[in-house]
Amino acid sequence: MQPATNPVPHQGRQFLSDNAAPVHPKVWDAMRAADAQDAPYDGDAVSARLDAHVTALFGRECAVLWVATGTAANCLALATMCPPYGGVVCHREAHIEADEGGAPGFYLHGAKLLLADGPSAKLTPDTVRVVIDPIRDDVHQVQPHAISVTQVSEYGCAYKPDEIAALRRLAHERDLGFHVDGARFGNAVAYLGCSPAEAIGGADALSFGFVKNGGMNAEAIVFFDTARNPDAAREARYRRKRAGHLQSKGRFLAAQIEAMLTDDLWLENARAANHAAASLAGAEDRLMHPIEANEVFLRCTAAERELLRAQGFGFYDWGADAARFVMSWDASPDAATALGEAVSRL
Amino acid sequence: MQPATNPVPHQGRQFLSDNAAPVHPKVWDAMRAADAQDAPYDGDAVSARLDAHVTALFGRECAVLWVATGTAANCLALATMCPPYGGVVCHREAHIEADEGGAPGFYLHGAKLLLADGPSAKLTPDTVRVVIDPIRDDVHQVQPHAISVTQVSEYGCAYKPDEIAALRRLAHERDLGFHVDGARFGNAVAYLGCSPAEAIGGADALSFGFVKNGGMNAEAIVFFDTARNPDAAREARYRRKRAGHLQSKGRFLAAQIEAMLTDDLWLENARAANHAAASLAGAEDRLMHPIEANEVFLRCTAAERELLRAQGFGFYDWGADAARFVMSWDASPDAATALGEAVSRL
Amino acid sequence: MQPATNPVPHQGRQFLSDNAAPVHPKVWDAMRAADAQDAPYDGDAVSARLDAHVTALFGRECAVLWVATGTAANCLALATMCPPYGGVVCHREAHIEADEGGAPGFYLHGAKLLLADGPSAKLTPDTVRVVIDPIRDDVHQVQPHAISVTQVSEYGCAYKPDEIAALRRLAHERDLGFHVDGARFGNAVAYLGCSPAEAIGGADALSFGFVKNGGMNAEAIVFFDTARNPDAAREARYRRKRAGHLQSKGRFLAAQIEAMLTDDLWLENARAANHAAASLAGAEDRLMHPIEANEVFLRCTAAERELLRAQGFGFYDWGADAARFVMSWDASPDAATALGEAVSRL
Amino acid sequence: MQPATNPVPHQGRQFLSDNAAPVHPKVWDAMRAADAQDAPYDGDAVSARLDAHVTALFGRECAVLWVATGTAANCLALATMCPPYGGVVCHREAHIEADEGGAPGFYLHGAKLLLADGPSAKLTPDTVRVVIDPIRDDVHQVQPHAISVTQVSEYGCAYKPDEIAALRRLAHERDLGFHVDGARFGNAVAYLGCSPAEAIGGADALSFGFVKNGGMNAEAIVFFDTARNPDAAREARYRRKRAGHLQSKGRFLAAQIEAMLTDDLWLENARAANHAAASLAGAEDRLMHPIEANEVFLRCTAAERELLRAQGFGFYDWGADAARFVMSWDASPDAATALGEAVSRL
Repeated sequence: MQPATNPVPHQGRQFLSDNAAPVHPKVWDAMRAADAQDAPYDGDAVSARLDAHVTALFGRECAVLWVATGTAANCLALATMCPPYGGVVCHREAHIEADEGGAPGFYLHGAKLLLADGPSAKLTPDTVRVVIDPIRDDVHQVQPHAISVTQVSEYGCAYKPDEIAALRRLAHERDLGFHVDGARFGNAVAYLGCSPAEAIGGADALSFGFVKNGGMNAEAIVFFDTARNPDAAREARYRRKRAGHLQSKGRFLAAQIEAMLTDDLWLENARAANHAAASLAGAEDRLMHPIEANEVFLRCTAAERELLRAQGFGFYDWGADAARFVMSWDASPDAATALGEAVSRL
Repeated sequence: MQPATNPVPHQGRQFLSDNAAPVHPKVWDAMRAADAQDAPYDGDAVSARLDAHVTALFGRECAVLWVATGTAANCLALATMCPPYGGVVCHREAHIEADEGGAPGFYLHGAKLLLADGPSAKLTPDTVRVVIDPIRDDVHQVQPHAISVTQVSEYGCAYKPDEIAALRRLAHERDLGFHVDGARFGNAVAYLGCSPAEAIGGADALSFGFVKNGGMNAEAIVFFDTARNPDAAREARYRRKRAGHLQSKGRFLAAQIEAMLTDDLWLENARAANHAAASLAGAEDRLMHPIEANEVFLRCTAAERELLRAQGFGFYDWGADAARFVMSWDASPDAATALGEAVSRL
Repeated sequence: MQPATNPVPHQGRQFLSDNAAPVHPKVWDAMRAADAQDAPYDGDAVSARLDAHVTALFGRECAVLWVATGTAANCLALATMCPPYGGVVCHREAHIEADEGGAPGFYLHGAKLLLADGPSAKLTPDTVRVVIDPIRDDVHQVQPHAISVTQVSEYGCAYKPDEIAALRRLAHERDLGFHVDGARFGNAVAYLGCSPAEAIGGADALSFGFVKNGGMNAEAIVFFDTARNPDAAREARYRRKRAGHLQSKGRFLAAQIEAMLTDDLWLENARAANHAAASLAGAEDRLMHPIEANEVFLRCTAAERELLRAQGFGFYDWGADAARFVMSWDASPDAATALGEAVSRL
Repeated sequence: MQPATNPVPHQGRQFLSDNAAPVHPKVWDAMRAADAQDAPYDGDAVSARLDAHVTALFGRECAVLWVATGTAANCLALATMCPPYGGVVCHREAHIEADEGGAPGFYLHGAKLLLADGPSAKLTPDTVRVVIDPIRDDVHQVQPHAISVTQVSEYGCAYKPDEIAALRRLAHERDLGFHVDGARFGNAVAYLGCSPAEAIGGADALSFGFVKNGGMNAEAIVFFDTARNPDAAREARYRRKRAGHLQSKGRFLAAQIEAMLTDDLWLENARAANHAAASLAGAEDRLMHPIEANEVFLRCTAAERELLRAQGFGFYDWGADAARFVMSWDASPDAATALGEAVSRL
């Protein structure tokens, strides 16, 4: 769900979203350094190094493609898993269902999202089975071809390694592809304290997000080496060009990703954001979802929200009786602490 | 929902579906007569007469296109109302959502079905508003462009003239197209006893079904003259060809439709089917939905269903605790009566 | 190319097209007999027998799907061979390029037709290589995934067994699917005097046409058992439903196909049509293409065409200086002879 | 056509392409300044100013959308002009036909490119008429809905104001949209010395390119106020999101465009590139196309190309007997002069 209003934030006490935050200085530096490269598209040296970086990070062979947005990353990954006449199981509140303007319908040529439930926007094997078990192998019904989970979920909640592994096992048992939307993957790994590989549970593909975590406009699609579709990365390269997402100076995207992966900047930024969010952990009775990443959803009345805004805090309403606070990589610890205190005083 | 099993029916006591029934003798006669025509595609004299027939029937100017299936009729009609990036509001159990193998996704190039609720698979203005009112004019959210209702609904229930008119008014107030899926439109009009025009409530387009009502393989798409999209029929002709639905000997489809419209054969057949269904009206306590057309949904246990099948009745299970009986235009009144008695004895 | 004008023919001397001809009596009989069947979709006994019929005819395992039009047959077959981001090589004057209203673009989700040349609308390995050899494995260029040939071609010319086999070998060497559009396949086999298998040269799929050859509205898509895409028929069944081409009373289509295959009615009808066309073989100096099937293209002036029409002959102009005569399965031998004589007298 | 080989250039004598050149310092500055903004998507102040900038530049009301690539710009513009069942007339060597991996087929849902000829990859009213005049209003044939021209063309040649105006008039006479692909629009205006408005001849939409002219990854789609489709910009915004081209930190794209438009940097850069290209104007006998922008196509043998490369010049082969030299905004005048002399000495 996209927030409904867009109040003007007071600088420094801005908790509207992580998707408008500044670009990290190290990302800027890497982009400037890439200016000297001169190969077009993804023929540059930085792009060429990404496979090795991500392979090392996950301990699994993989191929990495950059794109400008998470929407493109998700859709290009899913298009390698699901034919136009198939379906992708996702949570009813997943970003691909609720916030991407119907992009999966476009990229997957009319394939269908098959909507499942689960607490805090997380799927479980049981909620997936409720959706797929009644589907007969009958041409009147759209057949599932993939499962997509969001790590962390739309409500900032993380799948634990065994939870996501269980979903991946279900997927592969049923011959379904398994995709992880990792728009806030750094926040997940920072929270879980596990390896990146554990946090995706053996997925076939990952949308590895950097824009919400200090990048400018580069996300990675990671295709892991898999017997399921060994040709996925190659296919995705053709689809990326066809979608207008192959940038001619792609080195500037590759440089962002490389900077984020260097010395674990992606984890460092995510930890800072998560840490700021944890400042609100004291408001247990108001919490709609556990705080496991950099998003906090609090029950609070319109009057209470007005009080907070009067103190200069910027955030989005979440329906009539709640508010969403998102902490960016550059969130001021002081401001977060002040917000926590202000909430406690409500 | 497509029934899950396909038991072999006993001839004469067959209530599995109306979509496999024989072709009415008058339809056969008209098809044979059309053999003498020799113009290709829809250039024949019979095709040319359809506009006038349907215009007279509804008392509104309209253009009529034949196609072979209700799926094609629904999708071609909706494609004139909703762009690829838009959405069509329909009931969660509508045929276009549940039984057409994702055809709207194909024909509308990834447009989305926006699912609403309502008793007996009928929408109401309120249930539609629950879906469309929260949608902001925001590119992240798929915007509604049309409403599609099914007359009669998937559960054989009819929208009364004021009910369907209220939905059409809501549609037009919100600048949405209004489409009626009339796969069993004859059964609706036969039940309602109103005019065909009243039964569609001022729709922009109607999928006028004949296959379930004594035809072989011809359905009509009716585009009513409307300021909303004056070019709809012309567009649909291009889309029909592109979908491979322009038959070169189209006169055989036109002939079926003309035969059904002649001397109100469509109403006569529908009345016969409805009448047979009414034989089960005594089983009020078992009825899941009121009997308003030619479909009857009865609560009954597996053991009870076995008893009925042992008496030679053919029907589909409907989930674990119910059965669906569909009466065709050629349903034997005796068999229907016998079924009613058998149900009473359960 | 669709002919540009539609003059009213004089009954009996009609050579406008084979796609508006009457339905053969044996086809009518088979359709009437199918009325007694009562299984929906393709669950009937006639549909079930088609695989065996066609497997016997070609001496290769195959799966058969009926659809109403050649456009749907071609597109559903090609959709199993070529992804949305790929291309299909065909002749510049092929039906899929010139006469199907862009249907391949719809069914293949924007895949591209890669146009090759060749005399009499027939491809050759050399003309195909001219198109595909310059295509680099580069995402900026659409890659070929299949070759589609028309047997007989748009100009009524047949690929000899070694010609079509050479194209098929080229296709498979380059890892391309090989499809035969057989809208007039009967005319090809009748002319070539070879086996049906030889006439397709080892194709992966065939659009086997019956409508122009005495059928009403049933064409077969034949998927041969192949290591290339063992799942093709299954995929096509899902795509067929999604395209609205799964008819609920499909037995009437299956019956047409079975009737045509019984006692080689398809060959008998094609021979009659070819024989009638051969009546014009005397006009060698006027022939634009050799007469190898049931179509004749003659150079003749507007004045000459007027002379022929004054004698009651119906045909289409073919550009400014030519005419097309198409002989149907029911062409009157006398009328054909009379036409031949009239042409000689010009 | 994409060049076939990718030789390693010697720094400073690099004439491979303008699409890998460095980013102009003023663009960098603007991007850094945008970091302080914090509104997501296109809600920032820089994005908000673009309409006014471009309206002033062309003297016509317009709406401006940023996207990352020319492919996306072209396709989103064309999608507002042509339905899925229609066609877009373009030159046989246009970028949308030859170099975008089938992107128009994707974005326009299978619409067709209708290919026309003309010298130096420029259309003329006559060559367009050759394509569209034979198309009858017949559903078997794809109807034209738009014309797309490239200013400057694939061969670096400019449409003069009266030439492009004549094409626009033809388009509007035939009720076709008129789109200008301006990937190198700056080079066109710099060469023509006319106003930007004259250089597009009254187009409905312009893809205004900056990436090849000193930008990083921002192009503008300009929708001019027109009675033809007053809703085009609004539609395009929905399509942009759905294509994954709405970046969450869009201010960095807007900033690039604003920097390029400020003090006519776009013209200044284009003039520098054109000037460098003019250094080769002495080689008249080798020129394949007049030098009107920043691209030079020279006939030269493989041996001659080797000689040039031995002197450190980087460029692409253009087929077997030619070479393409592209001058970037930062081309060294000395190197260009040296190249001109080296060519003269061949």
